[in-house]
Amino acid sequence: MTLANDNRAYAQLAERFATAGKLAGARAILNWDAQTYMPKGGAWGRGEVQGALQAVTTDIIAAPDAAELLAAAEEADDALTAAEKANLAEMRRIWRHRAAAPKELLIAKARCCARLEIDWLEAKTNNDFPLFAKGFGELLPIIRETAQAKAAALGLSALDALIDAADPGLTVAAIEPIFADMEAALPALLAEAVERQKTWPAPIPLTGDFSIPRQRALSEKLAAAVGHSPEHLRIDPTAHPFAQAGTPGDNRITTRFDEDNIRFAVMATLHESGHALYESGLPRAMAFQPAGVARGASAHESQSLSIEMQAGRSREFLSWLAPRLGEAFGEGPCWGEANLINHWRRVGEGYIRVEADEISYPLHVILRFRLEQALLSGDLTVADLPGAWSDLSQRLFGRRPPDHARGCLQDIHWAAGLFGYFPNYALGAALAAQLFAAAVGEDGEVLRALALGDFGPWRAWIGPRFHGRASEVSFSQLVHDATGAPLSAAALKRHLRARYIDEPAPA
Amino acid sequence: MTLANDNRAYAQLAERFATAGKLAGARAILNWDAQTYMPKGGAWGRGEVQGALQAVTTDIIAAPDAAELLAAAEEADDALTAAEKANLAEMRRIWRHRAAAPKELLIAKARCCARLEIDWLEAKTNNDFPLFAKGFGELLPIIRETAQAKAAALGLSALDALIDAADPGLTVAAIEPIFADMEAALPALLAEAVERQKTWPAPIPLTGDFSIPRQRALSEKLAAAVGHSPEHLRIDPTAHPFAQAGTPGDNRITTRFDEDNIRFAVMATLHESGHALYESGLPRAMAFQPAGVARGASAHESQSLSIEMQAGRSREFLSWLAPRLGEAFGEGPCWGEANLINHWRRVGEGYIRVEADEISYPLHVILRFRLEQALLSGDLTVADLPGAWSDLSQRLFGRRPPDHARGCLQDIHWAAGLFGYFPNYALGAALAAQLFAAAVGEDGEVLRALALGDFGPWRAWIGPRFHGRASEVSFSQLVHDATGAPLSAAALKRHLRARYIDEPAPA
Repeated sequence: MTLANDNRAYAQLAERFATAGKLAGARAILNWDAQTYMPKGGAWGRGEVQGALQAVTTDIIAAPDAAELLAAAEEADDALTAAEKANLAEMRRIWRHRAAAPKELLIAKARCCARLEIDWLEAKTNNDFPLFAKGFGELLPIIRETAQAKAAALGLSALDALIDAADPGLTVAAIEPIFADMEAALPALLAEAVERQKTWPAPIPLTGDFSIPRQRALSEKLAAAVGHSPEHLRIDPTAHPFAQAGTPGDNRITTRFDEDNIRFAVMATLHESGHALYESGLPRAMAFQPAGVARGASAHESQSLSIEMQAGRSREFLSWLAPRLGEAFGEGPCWGEANLINHWRRVGEGYIRVEADEISYPLHVILRFRLEQALLSGDLTVADLPGAWSDLSQRLFGRRPPDHARGCLQDIHWAAGLFGYFPNYALGAALAAQLFAAAVGEDGEVLRALALGDFGPWRAWIGPRFHGRASEVSFSQLVHDATGAPLSAAALKRHLRARYIDEPAPA
Repeated sequence: MTLANDNRAYAQLAERFATAGKLAGARAILNWDAQTYMPKGGAWGRGEVQGALQAVTTDIIAAPDAAELLAAAEEADDALTAAEKANLAEMRRIWRHRAAAPKELLIAKARCCARLEIDWLEAKTNNDFPLFAKGFGELLPIIRETAQAKAAALGLSALDALIDAADPGLTVAAIEPIFADMEAALPALLAEAVERQKTWPAPIPLTGDFSIPRQRALSEKLAAAVGHSPEHLRIDPTAHPFAQAGTPGDNRITTRFDEDNIRFAVMATLHESGHALYESGLPRAMAFQPAGVARGASAHESQSLSIEMQAGRSREFLSWLAPRLGEAFGEGPCWGEANLINHWRRVGEGYIRVEADEISYPLHVILRFRLEQALLSGDLTVADLPGAWSDLSQRLFGRRPPDHARGCLQDIHWAAGLFGYFPNYALGAALAAQLFAAAVGEDGEVLRALALGDFGPWRAWIGPRFHGRASEVSFSQLVHDATGAPLSAAALKRHLRARYIDEPAPA
């Protein structure tokens, strides 16, 4: 990043934010470590270390002279390049978030969540909603107060202020029409697809030697196909797969090795490899700067879902994958392309969001977003949450979860204090469809090459249009520049209809 | 740690130093990660992150008001407990080190060493001393200037200022008589032992299935015997074993799995387990505070060598180890106790410090210390280093290294800018002997229990006398309290004579 010599305030801020970015890099690797290799007995000390890193970062970003420096830098922004202006705007946004939230509330939230996450796990295991409800009832007012403090500073509504933390620039006003469109179209589409799949042949069970070393070798092959090398990517096993945005040149994903179900490793590896591809394509020149990071949670999710759902469940990719699975786990009739499609594209089963099919998935998200809006506004009490969840499940999926573990206690997000975060999962799906359709429309090779396990044409299309731009423009600008249209559910609906209604049955 | 309410300056400092201690914890885990699991491509980013953590730590410790706070806290030290006074003294020392070294010199050193470490490896591989000499010649004036700046601030000589950074309170004046004693006694003792071992039977080669999983299982068993559990200790393989002082409850060691030589894994695991035992015994109440850490490099090395050398090469322990090795790698005549002694106690072979026997090891250290003294004073030029190394080898070991890789290029320390650091390896050996003799003198079970693979009596003796005291007293006080005498070479000399001259030959 060139330093603007004519704007000393900017240069000073860029240095501070670079430090903050590097401390964020430290926290990222330590978070990965805590979820992979840290001895369990290190939990207390790790909490102390992460807390200190966070506090020091706040001290750097919200230093007493920060407001003055930001104003001075903004006043002299003629001397800045477009990238530097974008960077300065991100600094302002981050500063507002950090400076707005009263420290007492942050501490109260951290303390409340630390206990609630433990209670949540126990409540989920024992189907004990009241245990969860107690701490959750204490958390909600803290979340509300934090949101209101941030809202005032950011000039946003309370919920928009929460959304903005994970997904800069996104608002309820932008989300609502997309969700309304999904909510109107997807339940009927889901029912139609379920009905249609009743005529499919019974799938041949997927069997083979699913021992861990074989699953690991396959995961490495899949990550390599997506575009990764061991020089820059680690793959490790965890119960809950995740991609860790690390530091430049150092990307880490985890995947799930289930010896009874090979689909988990395949889908998780593809999904997380998609996230990691975004991270690995961020411009090195903007490393550690606010505008050098991925453009929010929805943008990130669009990249994982482009790989896992758009590419990863295409007929072309599955035709390449089928023989690879046979090589990996022992040949057999179950590894036919048609049988793979029969397994990979089944819809309308189960109650769990993270295992849901492409059509159901956005509905899971909408359900949560509706309920968290009501919880935050006070329209829904904690005690009424299970009933509301059940009713909304009935309306969206046509059935009710049999217990809390498969209902309102299935996700950790609320226990972890994450509100306004769920929408990104559905918006990411919509954007993945929109991006993939645009890419295939411009270059048919994007799809055809998948039949050879080659993601090169996809990378060539998405890289400069998305990864390389980091946070240099707003999310909506990024979407518009790449696809020629604002984000909507249209492409997703077309995609789901084409794949689940119009394509011939597997045979 | 109780906060002294009557001493607000102290309380403020304790909070700052706790933050600094937590950032040090982050750096420790990131260092471990860089040497174990980091993808190679992450090196640049990791360097940036570690640099930022170091800079932020310096900003916290050497803040503009730190001198004032230290003075105020010291003035009101009536209100402090003994532990708090010790903590305050450590704060003062650390502040002096951080505040004294000019930033330009630190940056110049970091830059110079980054290049020199790469050149060193290439020079060592290609036996190319001039390649190393170039960068080393640039580094030396930087080290000298830094030492002089610190010396002025600390009221020490230049070399003592360097030693104090790794080994608080140690000075050349304290080291010199111990080294002189070793230098006078050990060459003759070594020659006598070598002569004696000529009459030993030829050892049966150690053979078995030394595959990695078996070596790993053995390492876990050895670490457990020393006193560790997987709840608090990780063991991972690296080419150069090390113990990472991590964060409370989170200790990590690495060991070396060589399929051709099982001794490396055994010795490295015992050695690093000894270091980790010290870390795991530090008092939780002092966590992250300056006086809560281990009492310097020599104290640390005494703990690893107590386990590896004093206990680990005793007849008692080897009698327990021999059948364990048979179980681990397949029974055979090579796993007899006498044969193990025959392998484990061979002296006078090779040229490499890290593989040296108990008698030679201190001489390796003395050789380096003599040469670095001469390099720093200017009495020895870089060009003359190989010749001086060769001559001193001849005098101490009776032979000259055949090449630079087995001579003056064998260690990374100087390339990494570590001067005044080598002495701890020999002082640690002297202290290990002194501590172990004191322990066995007070409780014979310390030695007898090793025949059952039981380090419990050792832990019971050393824990309260050493580990639990952290840095609450000076190094010399710690040694005196535990052993009733100041540190000297006497116990080591007695130990080496007893083990290598007086004990009967293995048969």
